[in-house]
Amino acid sequence: MIASTFAWAKGHGTENDYIVLPDYDGGVHGDLSKELVTTLCHRRRGLGADGVLRVVRSSSIHGVPETDAEWFMDYRNPDGSVAQMCGNGARVFVRFLAESGLVDPTGPIRFGTRSGTKTATIAEDGSICVDMGTVELQGSVEIAVGDRSWKAHKISVGNPHAVVFVDSLEEAGPLQETPEYDVSDFPDGVNVEFVRPEADGELSMRVYERGAGETRSCGTGACAAAVAHVVTEDLVTPTTIRVGVLGGTLEVPVDTGNEVKLSGPAVIVAQGELELRLAG
Amino acid sequence: MIASTFAWAKGHGTENDYIVLPDYDGGVHGDLSKELVTTLCHRRRGLGADGVLRVVRSSSIHGVPETDAEWFMDYRNPDGSVAQMCGNGARVFVRFLAESGLVDPTGPIRFGTRSGTKTATIAEDGSICVDMGTVELQGSVEIAVGDRSWKAHKISVGNPHAVVFVDSLEEAGPLQETPEYDVSDFPDGVNVEFVRPEADGELSMRVYERGAGETRSCGTGACAAAVAHVVTEDLVTPTTIRVGVLGGTLEVPVDTGNEVKLSGPAVIVAQGELELRLAG
Repeated sequence: MIASTFAWAKGHGTENDYIVLPDYDGGVHGDLSKELVTTLCHRRRGLGADGVLRVVRSSSIHGVPETDAEWFMDYRNPDGSVAQMCGNGARVFVRFLAESGLVDPTGPIRFGTRSGTKTATIAEDGSICVDMGTVELQGSVEIAVGDRSWKAHKISVGNPHAVVFVDSLEEAGPLQETPEYDVSDFPDGVNVEFVRPEADGELSMRVYERGAGETRSCGTGACAAAVAHVVTEDLVTPTTIRVGVLGGTLEVPVDTGNEVKLSGPAVIVAQGELELRLAG
Repeated sequence: MIASTFAWAKGHGTENDYIVLPDYDGGVHGDLSKELVTTLCHRRRGLGADGVLRVVRSSSIHGVPETDAEWFMDYRNPDGSVAQMCGNGARVFVRFLAESGLVDPTGPIRFGTRSGTKTATIAEDGSICVDMGTVELQGSVEIAVGDRSWKAHKISVGNPHAVVFVDSLEEAGPLQETPEYDVSDFPDGVNVEFVRPEADGELSMRVYERGAGETRSCGTGACAAAVAHVVTEDLVTPTTIRVGVLGGTLEVPVDTGNEVKLSGPAVIVAQGELELRLAG
């Protein structure tokens, strides 16, 4: 039994939920063990979350892209693996920076991620908009679930996505198993979005996230879906696509050249100190 | 937005998980609002749990059965409703009392619940055995899920149960909706157990808990299933029935007159202070 005491917070953005670990100088969690992340994220044997966001100074983390931003978002999937970027997590990260007085909430807020330096702004209504960079269209691939298969857009938003347009969100079934794909297309795994264009020009979406299963929302997935929609429908840019997910609604401003932002809610629900026990 | 700071812990027993709220003199949480319970239990907008266990002195809670035990287990379902008793919760409650130095862990530990005063013992291997009182067989009822229906044992373990014996645990389907029953049989709702006797004399079980949906385990449900099995198979008592649930294994010593105990693991995973925000 290993027990350790540390500060933590929990927040969510469109019901993607995260444990936030303040570790400003990297001295609390070191390299952040896989065991700690999986215990924190397990919904019944631990605390429960869709991922962990370690808040660390960029000068105190190594082996990541260089950035001149003071703060770095060290994001982990619930299985303990490292991920480049997490759109909903980024808003929760920015909300935490702002509420903790670590950044000026009235100006653009810059922070480092494994897919480069990002910029966020906090609107008057409290929604947070994060510059997500350029979405890359990488051709088409095939995705299968059970005995069904679809042609999908292969897309990178810093992390890999496959966007499938469907007539009904039920088409993919209960999504209890990982969708199948050609591993040479996605050697590091893939997030799969099933997207239905709605009558009012909005999109509705379900998402299967690598390492996590079906989730209530996926920010980079909404960006991938929005750009796939703009390209498929040949829409004039700049335009803003609204994407309805199980946990709420996101907005994706799409600029020329497939530069996107992601805007939506983010809330810190609880914070404090905790003593965590790991079975050892 | 209402923010309040208080002590908390999270624990689980066979993966039924609980938020424990120490409130020894009832001054922290008062009557424990439905809003607080639902926020604590929501798995994405809150912290996430199958229920809340408030730890309060019996002299500081009113409108409950009288008890001469010092501590009272004020248990709430995740929808905020009051419940009489919770078998897995009782073990987590006792573990918390013992680890917090509120009781002597080497002797019998007595505590009050809404279904009367209970006694627990902690075994050398760490498993906790709770006296669950007498199980009442109350005849047979009918339970339906979708277009299937079964004859069930109507059973009270302080709280109401319907035990259905099935050939396969898959029979009940995905259990995403509340099983149907005659409301005059169960005016306060019912927990439904689907139970399969295994070749080695053990039982395997799935459970749908009122107010919570399908859960990983249910202690009183295991007691109900064990007694229904003993009666159906006309087994000699005293005997001990092992019950496999999704989250682990429980043991139910069944004495003559259908007096039962419930034995199994219980772990406090994390504890600390937290500031919780409620959208107001």
